Amino acid sequence: MLPRGRPRAIGAAALLLLLLVVGFFLFGRDPEYGLRAAATLDGEQYGSRNRSASSPQPPLPPKCELLHVAIVCAGYNSSREIVTLVKSVLFYRKNPLHLHLVTDIVARNILETLFRTWMVPAVVVSFYDAEELKPLISWIPNKHYSGLYGLMKLVLPSALPLSLDRVIVLDTDITFFSDILELWTLFARFSDKQVVGLVDNQSNWYLGNLWKNHRPWPALGRGFNTGVILLRLDRLRQIGWEPMWKLIAKRELLTLKATSLADQDIFNAVIKEHPELVLPLPCVWNVQLSDHTLAEHCYLEAADLKVIHWNSPKKLQVKNKHAEFFRNLHLTFLGYDGKLLRRELFGCPNQLPPGAEQLQQALAQLDEEEPCFEFRQQQLTVHRVHITFLSHQPPPLRPHDVTLVAQLSMDRLQMLEALCRHWPGPMSLALYLTDAEAQQFLHFVETSPVLSARKDVAYHVVYREGPLYPVNQLRNVALAQALTPYVFLSDIDFLPAYSLYDYLRASLKQLELGSQRKAALVVPAFETLHYRFSFPNTKAELLNLLDAGSLHTFRYHEWPQGHAPTDYSRWREAQAPYRVQWSADYEPYVVVPRDCPRYDPRFVGFGWNKVAHIIELDAQEYELLVLPEAFSIHLPHAPSLDISRFRSSPTYRDCLQALKEEFHQDLSRRYGSAALKYLTALQQSQSRA
Amino acid sequence: MLPRGRPRAIGAAALLLLLLVVGFFLFGRDPEYGLRAAATLDGEQYGSRNRSASSPQPPLPPKCELLHVAIVCAGYNSSREIVTLVKSVLFYRKNPLHLHLVTDIVARNILETLFRTWMVPAVVVSFYDAEELKPLISWIPNKHYSGLYGLMKLVLPSALPLSLDRVIVLDTDITFFSDILELWTLFARFSDKQVVGLVDNQSNWYLGNLWKNHRPWPALGRGFNTGVILLRLDRLRQIGWEPMWKLIAKRELLTLKATSLADQDIFNAVIKEHPELVLPLPCVWNVQLSDHTLAEHCYLEAADLKVIHWNSPKKLQVKNKHAEFFRNLHLTFLGYDGKLLRRELFGCPNQLPPGAEQLQQALAQLDEEEPCFEFRQQQLTVHRVHITFLSHQPPPLRPHDVTLVAQLSMDRLQMLEALCRHWPGPMSLALYLTDAEAQQFLHFVETSPVLSARKDVAYHVVYREGPLYPVNQLRNVALAQALTPYVFLSDIDFLPAYSLYDYLRASLKQLELGSQRKAALVVPAFETLHYRFSFPNTKAELLNLLDAGSLHTFRYHEWPQGHAPTDYSRWREAQAPYRVQWSADYEPYVVVPRDCPRYDPRFVGFGWNKVAHIIELDAQEYELLVLPEAFSIHLPHAPSLDISRFRSSPTYRDCLQALKEEFHQDLSRRYGSAALKYLTALQQSQSRA
Repeated sequence: MLPRGRPRAIGAAALLLLLLVVGFFLFGRDPEYGLRAAATLDGEQYGSRNRSASSPQPPLPPKCELLHVAIVCAGYNSSREIVTLVKSVLFYRKNPLHLHLVTDIVARNILETLFRTWMVPAVVVSFYDAEELKPLISWIPNKHYSGLYGLMKLVLPSALPLSLDRVIVLDTDITFFSDILELWTLFARFSDKQVVGLVDNQSNWYLGNLWKNHRPWPALGRGFNTGVILLRLDRLRQIGWEPMWKLIAKRELLTLKATSLADQDIFNAVIKEHPELVLPLPCVWNVQLSDHTLAEHCYLEAADLKVIHWNSPKKLQVKNKHAEFFRNLHLTFLGYDGKLLRRELFGCPNQLPPGAEQLQQALAQLDEEEPCFEFRQQQLTVHRVHITFLSHQPPPLRPHDVTLVAQLSMDRLQMLEALCRHWPGPMSLALYLTDAEAQQFLHFVETSPVLSARKDVAYHVVYREGPLYPVNQLRNVALAQALTPYVFLSDIDFLPAYSLYDYLRASLKQLELGSQRKAALVVPAFETLHYRFSFPNTKAELLNLLDAGSLHTFRYHEWPQGHAPTDYSRWREAQAPYRVQWSADYEPYVVVPRDCPRYDPRFVGFGWNKVAHIIELDAQEYELLVLPEAFSIHLPHAPSLDISRFRSSPTYRDCLQALKEEFHQDLSRRYGSAALKYLTALQQSQSRA
Repeated sequence: MLPRGRPRAIGAAALLLLLLVVGFFLFGRDPEYGLRAAATLDGEQYGSRNRSASSPQPPLPPKCELLHVAIVCAGYNSSREIVTLVKSVLFYRKNPLHLHLVTDIVARNILETLFRTWMVPAVVVSFYDAEELKPLISWIPNKHYSGLYGLMKLVLPSALPLSLDRVIVLDTDITFFSDILELWTLFARFSDKQVVGLVDNQSNWYLGNLWKNHRPWPALGRGFNTGVILLRLDRLRQIGWEPMWKLIAKRELLTLKATSLADQDIFNAVIKEHPELVLPLPCVWNVQLSDHTLAEHCYLEAADLKVIHWNSPKKLQVKNKHAEFFRNLHLTFLGYDGKLLRRELFGCPNQLPPGAEQLQQALAQLDEEEPCFEFRQQQLTVHRVHITFLSHQPPPLRPHDVTLVAQLSMDRLQMLEALCRHWPGPMSLALYLTDAEAQQFLHFVETSPVLSARKDVAYHVVYREGPLYPVNQLRNVALAQALTPYVFLSDIDFLPAYSLYDYLRASLKQLELGSQRKAALVVPAFETLHYRFSFPNTKAELLNLLDAGSLHTFRYHEWPQGHAPTDYSRWREAQAPYRVQWSADYEPYVVVPRDCPRYDPRFVGFGWNKVAHIIELDAQEYELLVLPEAFSIHLPHAPSLDISRFRSSPTYRDCLQALKEEFHQDLSRRYGSAALKYLTALQQSQSRA
C-alpha cells in the first residue's frame, strides 16, 4: 500500500501546465521521478549512509524472539498485495511474527478468512479498525491517492497496544529477499535519542528542483522513504510524538496546502527539524523502484539486496532497465504456493494456530495404507481461502434477489464470459486454483471487457491442495459469500436461460416464499452435445430443439435418475409451478434461501455431491417446486480427471460407496426414522447395481 | 544422485538373515539408519565440529568470483533430480557458476537441451563422459545401487581440467537453502595440508555396531558423508591422490569384498589413515535425511539450515518427524518456475549464454503497443525443454516403424490412458506444463498402471511461458525426438483405430516408400459428440455409426474445407490407397518420414498451424495418399481458451491473418512461382470471407 505517487488529477494537471510553461519534460505520472540533468547524485550522502551497512552487524537477538510488523491495508487490491509481501517475509523468516494489521472492513473480511485458513505456525495476526483512526488524521489535506489510509502510519504509536515498544512498519508494495530478523536487528543500532529508522528516498523529489516552483515538503537532503520504517513506539510516546508531528504539519500546511506523499511528507518535515530522531538505514532495506529511481546506485554496488519497494503506481509494469530482474524476484512470491509456508520453527516453542493441533491429530490418525486414504485426507484438508479476490460491489439489498452460486477450476475459465452474458445478476463463484493460476486468472479478468465490467461477480479463490477436487467445500465457500436472500445453486458448465434471472426474482416474489414456507425451486436442466449451438430464447424454442434432437434432457443417456423426478413431460405443458417428490439419486439445480443447508464436505472428487445436498433439503422438508419457464443448458466438455478416475478405478467407486454409507449413518443420527426412506432407496439402488 | 543406501537385493537378504539370527530389529531398507539404543551420540565430537560453524566467517572472496561445482548424473531420474538441485543453487547464488557435469549419454542428451534452452546468465556448463571414467573404477566391487557412477567422485581430480584447482562436489539429491558462496568461502579455512572438506556422517553406520558382525569400512568415528564435498583438486594431484586411494581401497578389499556406500567408503578409509587431509565442515552444510538420521542434533540447535541431503532411498517419502518441514522446503524448488532464474548478476561482467543477446535484441525491437505484440513475443520465446522427462526405452530399429507424435497441456492428461490402449507403438509427446504441473504429471503417470507400464512413450516437457499456446513449437519438439523412420502426426484429442499402428507399418512396407518416393499417408479423421461411445473395431462398424449419425466426418459442420479433399465418399468404397490433391485449408492427419519439414513456429495460439504444414509438404512435392482402412476419431471437449479468444476477439483474428500473409511471403521466397497457387487460394478464401 501507500506507494508514493500519482497525485490527484487536478494536481497533475497543474504540474503539467507548469512543466509546459517552463519547458521541462515530464517523465511520467509518478511525482517521484528525478530529472537527472537537473540533479546530480549526492554521492557523499549516499556513501556515508551506505558505509553504515558494512559496519559490523550488531549481535543477533535471542533465538525465537517475537518480531512485530505493522501494515496498513485497505481495499481489494491491497489485500492481494499484502499476501505477496507476507509470503516473502515468511519464506525467509526464522522467528515468530506478530502482524498488526490496520484495515478497512473489506481488507479485514478478506484477511481474517485468509489467515484463519492459512494456519501458519508461529504467526499471530491482530486487526485494528482503520475507521477508528480516521478522525485522528482526516484534518490533513492529502493529494496522495492512498487517501486517508496513507496517513495512518503517523498514529501507530497510539493505535498499537501500549505494551508494544518497537515495530517494523511496511507498505504493502514491499517484497522481502532476506530474513526480516536482520532488519529487526538494526534496532540495536539506535542511539538513545533515535526513534525512527528509515532509508533515504531514492529520488530527487525532496530536493525541490524537479521543475520550476516545485515546492516539496521540507526534508533533510534527499529525504527519507517511509515504505519501510523501524519505529521505537515507547520512545515516540515518551517524546510526545503526536503533538510534535501535528504542530509541524499544521505549520507547514499554512503554506503548503496539502501533503503530496501522505505520511512521508510529515515524517520528513519532523526529521528536518529534529534530525537527531532518525537512524538512517542501509539503502538495501528499501530499494525503491519508482520510474526514475536512483536506486541503481544502491543495488549495483551492494553485495546483497534485502527489500524491494514497488513505489511506482505502475507497480510491476514500471519502466526500468532492470525491471525484468526485479519482476522475476517478485513473481517468485506472487506464484509461490502459500501452503509450503506452513512450516514450524525448529527450536522455538510450539506456536500452532487455532485448530491446527486437532487437525494434525486427525491427520495423524489416518492410515496411509487404507484404500480410501486420499479421500479421508482430502476431506480434512483446510484450504487457504481468499474471498473476494477481485474488486466487488455488493448488490443492494432487494428482498427477492438471487445470486448464482458455482465453482470452477482453471480449465473452465472460458465459461465465465458466456455466463456473464446469460446471467445479469450477482454471482458468487469459488475458484480452485494454485497461487500461480490465481495470477493468470487475475490477468484473464483484467483483459476481458465483459468480465472487468461486472462488479457484481464475487470471485473467491480456494487454493489447491491434494489430489481430489473438493467440490462441496468449494460450493460452501461460494454459498457462504452470497449476499442476496436467495441463491441459484448451479454448475459452471451450465448456461441459464437469458430470462432466468428476472424470471426467478418474479417467481420468488409471486410465490411469497418466506419463513413459513420452505421451498427449493427446481430449474430444469438440459444439455447440448454441440460445441457451437444457438441458445434458445424461449421455452418454445427450447422445446423445438428438444424435438429436433439437438437438445436432450440432462444426462438422459447416462444417469436418467438424476433428473427424472423433475418430470420433463409435465414440464412441457406446465403453466404454473408444480410440486415433485424426492426420489433416489435426484440432483436438480435449485433456487433456495441463502440460509439453506450447506453441502456435505465429505464428498470430494466425482460423484453424489449434489445428491446428498438434495436429500438434506428433503429431510428438512423443503418443498420441491419445478418452475415452468425456467431452464438451463449444459455445454459439452471433456470428462474431468475425477470422472475418468471414477470410471476406471474400482477403488474410487468403492470409496464413494463408503462415503455414501457414512453419510446415511449421519443422516439417521440427525433425522431418526424420517431418514429411513433414504437408506431404503440406497439399498434398493445397490441391489439393482 | 548417489544417495547412500539400498544395497543390492542379495546384500539386503544377507543382512536380514543376520538380523533375524541376532534378534535385532531392522528399521528399514536404508543401511544408514542408527540403532539408537545401541549407539549414544558422541556429543563431544558433534560439538567440537559445530563450534567451527560459529567461528568468525573468513573474508568473502572478491565479488563475481566464478564458483565451480561438479556433479555426477546418470539416467532419467537423476536428470530430474539435478534440476531441482540446480534451481535451489541458482535461487540463492550471487556469483557466476561453472557446472562440471559427469554424465551418461541419457543425462547428457537431456541436460544439454535443458541448459541450452534455459539460458541462465552467468552459468557455464561442461560435460564429461562418464563412459570414459568407467575403466578407472570398474575394478572396485560395489554393492551400492548407484553402481559405477557412485564411485566416480573419486576420480574427479584427474577427470576435471588441470587448470581447475578447487571444486564443490554435490550429489543430485541435495537441496540448497543458502548462497553457495558461503560454502565456497569455507575453502579459506583449509590448512596447508587439508585437501577435502566434509560433513560428519549423521548416522551410526560407520560405528560398526548396528548389528552383530556388521563390518563397515574403516572410518574416523562416525565417518564423513560425501554428498557435499569441497575438493582442493590441485593439492590432491600434488599428494598423489590416485595411487593413495587405490592402495587403501585394494588393501581393504582383501577383507571387505565390496564397498557398501560406493565412494564414501573409500573416502572414509583414506581419511582414517590420513586424518590430516580433511577439514570437517559445519553440520548444516549437509543435513542428512536418512530414515533414522541423527541430523536433528544439528538442525534443532543451529541458527540456520544451509543444505539438506535426501540420502534415503525413499527420498521425499522418508519417515522422519520433521519430514513435512523438509518436504515443504524442497517442494519450493521442485515447483519453482525455472524461467524466473534467468536473472542477471548485478555488478558482474555480462555473461549472457549463447543466443541470449540476439534474443534480447529481437525482443527489444518489438513494439508493446502493436496489436499483435503478444503473438510476436510468443514466437520469439525460448521455452525451457526437458526431453524424456520420464524413463524411456527407445524402440528397436525397425525399417517401417511409426511413432505417434502429439502435444498436450495439463487439461488433456486424461486422454493418455485411452491413447495408450489405442496405440501400442512408440509415442513422442510434448507436454506444455509449469514446473509444478510437471510434478503432478509425474505423479499421474506413476499412479497409472497403464501409463507406467509403457516405456515406449517419450514425454518431453516444454515449460510454459507467455499467454499463447505455442502449438507448433511443441509439435516440433515431439517430432525432433521421434526415433522411428516414420511419424504419425496426430492431435491429442484423437483416438486412432485399434489396428492403426499395425496397419500403418504394413502399409509403409507395402507401398515401398523410400528416398525415391515422398509421400504423406492420410489418416481420415472423424468425430463423435458423445462423452461415452463405443469405439468401432472395423471400418464397417465405423461406417455404420456414420450412417446412424453417431459419428461425423471431422469438423463437418464448422470447417468442412479442413478435410474435404480427403474425399470421404471415395474412402467409403476404397480398397487401395488413393492420391488426393491439395486444396486451400486442407489439414489432414498424416504419416510422413521423420525427416519431414518442421512445423512453422510462427503459428501460436489457435488457427492454421496444421494447414501451413500441409502446404509445406505439398510445396516439397509430397504425394498425399489416403489409406483405405485407416481412421482416427476425435473426442469431444470444451473449446480451448485460445479458440474462445479467436472467436471473441477481432484482433486475434487479424493477427492470425497477418501471420498467414507473412507465411505466404516466406513461401514465395523459398519456392518461387511454385508457391503461387497457395497465395491465390488464400486470396480467394479471403474474398469469400
